[in-house]
Amino acid sequence: MKLDDLVHEVSEWLKGSGPDPDIVISSRVRLARNIQSSPFVHWANRRKGKSILSKLEEAVGAIPHMKSALFLRIDELTETDKQFLLERHLISHEHAQGGGFRGVAISDREVISIMLNEEDHLRIQVLQSGFNLSEAWRLASSVDRELEQRLELAYSPSWGYLTACPTNTGTGLRASVMVHLPCLMMTKQIGKVLQALNKLSLAARGLFGEGTEAAGNFFQFSNQVTLGQSEEDIIDNLERVIRQIIDHEKEARKVLLGQNKEKLFDQIWRSYGTLRNSYIINSQETINLMSLVRLGVDMGIVSNIDRKVVNELFILTQPAHLQKLEGKDLTPQERDVKRAELIRGKLNHEGRK
Amino acid sequence: MKLDDLVHEVSEWLKGSGPDPDIVISSRVRLARNIQSSPFVHWANRRKGKSILSKLEEAVGAIPHMKSALFLRIDELTETDKQFLLERHLISHEHAQGGGFRGVAISDREVISIMLNEEDHLRIQVLQSGFNLSEAWRLASSVDRELEQRLELAYSPSWGYLTACPTNTGTGLRASVMVHLPCLMMTKQIGKVLQALNKLSLAARGLFGEGTEAAGNFFQFSNQVTLGQSEEDIIDNLERVIRQIIDHEKEARKVLLGQNKEKLFDQIWRSYGTLRNSYIINSQETINLMSLVRLGVDMGIVSNIDRKVVNELFILTQPAHLQKLEGKDLTPQERDVKRAELIRGKLNHEGRK
Repeated sequence: MKLDDLVHEVSEWLKGSGPDPDIVISSRVRLARNIQSSPFVHWANRRKGKSILSKLEEAVGAIPHMKSALFLRIDELTETDKQFLLERHLISHEHAQGGGFRGVAISDREVISIMLNEEDHLRIQVLQSGFNLSEAWRLASSVDRELEQRLELAYSPSWGYLTACPTNTGTGLRASVMVHLPCLMMTKQIGKVLQALNKLSLAARGLFGEGTEAAGNFFQFSNQVTLGQSEEDIIDNLERVIRQIIDHEKEARKVLLGQNKEKLFDQIWRSYGTLRNSYIINSQETINLMSLVRLGVDMGIVSNIDRKVVNELFILTQPAHLQKLEGKDLTPQERDVKRAELIRGKLNHEGRK
Repeated sequence: MKLDDLVHEVSEWLKGSGPDPDIVISSRVRLARNIQSSPFVHWANRRKGKSILSKLEEAVGAIPHMKSALFLRIDELTETDKQFLLERHLISHEHAQGGGFRGVAISDREVISIMLNEEDHLRIQVLQSGFNLSEAWRLASSVDRELEQRLELAYSPSWGYLTACPTNTGTGLRASVMVHLPCLMMTKQIGKVLQALNKLSLAARGLFGEGTEAAGNFFQFSNQVTLGQSEEDIIDNLERVIRQIIDHEKEARKVLLGQNKEKLFDQIWRSYGTLRNSYIINSQETINLMSLVRLGVDMGIVSNIDRKVVNELFILTQPAHLQKLEGKDLTPQERDVKRAELIRGKLNHEGRK
C-alpha cells in the first residue's frame, strides 16, 4: 500500500457502522509508551532520535497486526501529505509540524496507526467505527502486548507507564469518542452537557482534535485522568457518560421533530439542496451543511444517501484530500470550486438511487 | 367561467412566450376612458355610481371581445378574492380597496380586463406575453373602438380623452413593459438605467405596480406623458428604450458568464436547490430565488424547467393564490409551509423530466 492509495479508500472509522452510528462517528483509544533507557523524544539528539526511530520501525514492523502496514517518515512527506494524514486522523498536529526523525505506521483500513517519535516514542492509536471503545481498547492492548514482547518499555511499578508529559503517566491511555450533537446544539442544551463533562474531568474537543472548534456540531469527548484508575475503569466511566449524552441527543431529536417538524425538515433539506447544487463552497460551510444532512440521514428524513457517503464527504472535502484527489496543489479558490464539484457528483449519484 | 377557475389557468401574460421572453415577462397597454355627461367616479353619488356601473357592464358585455367574459362586482368579493385579482394584475390596488360600485370584466385567458368605475369609468387593459406592445396596443384600441360605438365617451377636440386625473388626459394611454434585469442589478448598472429613464420621462415600478419594490429584479417601465404625443409615438418611444435596456441586460449576462462562470452557476443553482428543498419559505425569499432560477432558465443553464412553470410559480406562490389553491384562509406561517410544498411539488415534477 502507498500513501496515495489511501485517498481512494474509506477508513474503518468512517464506515458509519458499529454501535449507535446515528450519533457516534467513531471511538478511539491511544496508548502512550516509551522505551526504557532511551531519552524521551524532546531530549534525544539527532543521532539518537534517528536510531530510536529505526529501532521502533523494526519492532512495529515485526508484530502480526502491522505485517502489511504502511510505514512513512514524516520528514519525507510534502506539506499536503502531512495535512492529508492529519485530516484522516492518522497523525497529530504536533507530529505533522515538529521536525526531527518522526514516523508513522498505518495498518490496513487505518484501524491501527502508530506514531513513532511523537511526544512519546510510541503512540498506539486504534480507531473504530461507531460507539465501540471496548473493541478499540481490546485491539490497542493487544498491539501493546505484542510490542512489549519486542521492546523494553519505560514502566514504574508505582507510577505505571512513564511518559514525556506527566498528564499521560500511569495508563498512558486516552480514550475518546466523536459524537454528533446537532439537536443538543439547536436546543441550546450543549452548554450544560459541556459543564457536566468538565466536572467529571472529561475533555471536549472539535472534529480535528485539540484546539479546533466544534465545527458541524461534532465533539470529541475524552478522559483527562490517566493515573490512579485502571484502563477498564477509565473506559467504563467514559462509556457511561457518553451513553447519557447519546440519550440526551436522542431525546432532543424527538422533541424537535414533535415541536416543529417543518422547521427541522426545512433546515435539513435546504442544507441538502445547497450542497447538491453549489458551484463554490468553503470547508466551513460544507461541514455545517453536511452536519444537518447527516442528521437527516440519521433521523430517516433523508433516505436517498448512505451514511458512509456523508461521513466520507466530511474527509474528502478537506483541503489536502481535495488536492490529493486532483493530483496537484490548488489555491483556496480552486479548492472551493473543486469541493463543490465533488459534493455535487457524490450527492447526484446517490440522489438518483 | 368563474373566479375560482382562474387559479388553475395560466394567464396569457405568464406563458413565457412572445418576443424576447428571456428578459421581457409581459407588455401591457391600458386606456383610461370616461362617459360623456356622467360625473367622474369620485363625484358620483351612490345611486349614480350604481347606474353608471350597470350601463358600463351592459356596454362591455355587448362587444365581441368580451362576449364570454367574467364579470365581477368588487363589493361582492372576499378580501382574498380581491387580493387574488390584484396578484394576477387584473385590478389595481385602488380598485381593490376603494368602496362603492366597482366592477371588472375579464376576457378569456385574461388577455383583456376592463375595470369599471375605477378612477375613471373605464380602464381597458390588455396584457401580452413577452415584448409585444404593438399587439397589446392593437387589441386595446380595437376594444376602445367597439366601446365607442356603444358609449358616448368624454372627449375634447383640443385636450383629447378627458380623465379624472389630468396626468392621464389626452391619449389616456399607459404602455408598460415588465422586464427582468438580474444582471444589470448584479453588475450595479441598474442605477444608471433608472436615471436615464427618468430623464426620458419614463417611470419604473416593481412587480406589483405603483409603490411596490423591484423585488426579484423585476421592473415595470412605462410612459408618464399621455398628452401631446400620438399613441403610436408613445409606444414607439417606450419600445426603443426597452430595446436598449434588453441589449444592456444581454451584454451584462454575457460579461458575468465570461468573468466568473462558477459564481453565476453557484448563485443560480443554490437558488434552485433551496427552492426545491425548502419546507418553510416566505414570498420575499421565493421571489428573489425564483428570479435567479429564471435567469438560469433564460441563459440555458437550468434546462430541466420550463419558463412557463417559473412564471406561474411567481403568481401561484402569492398569498391569495395559495389560499385559493388550499380553499381556505391560511395564517402567514401556514402559507410559508404551503408555499414551500407547492414549489417542491412543481420543481420535483419538472426536475424529473
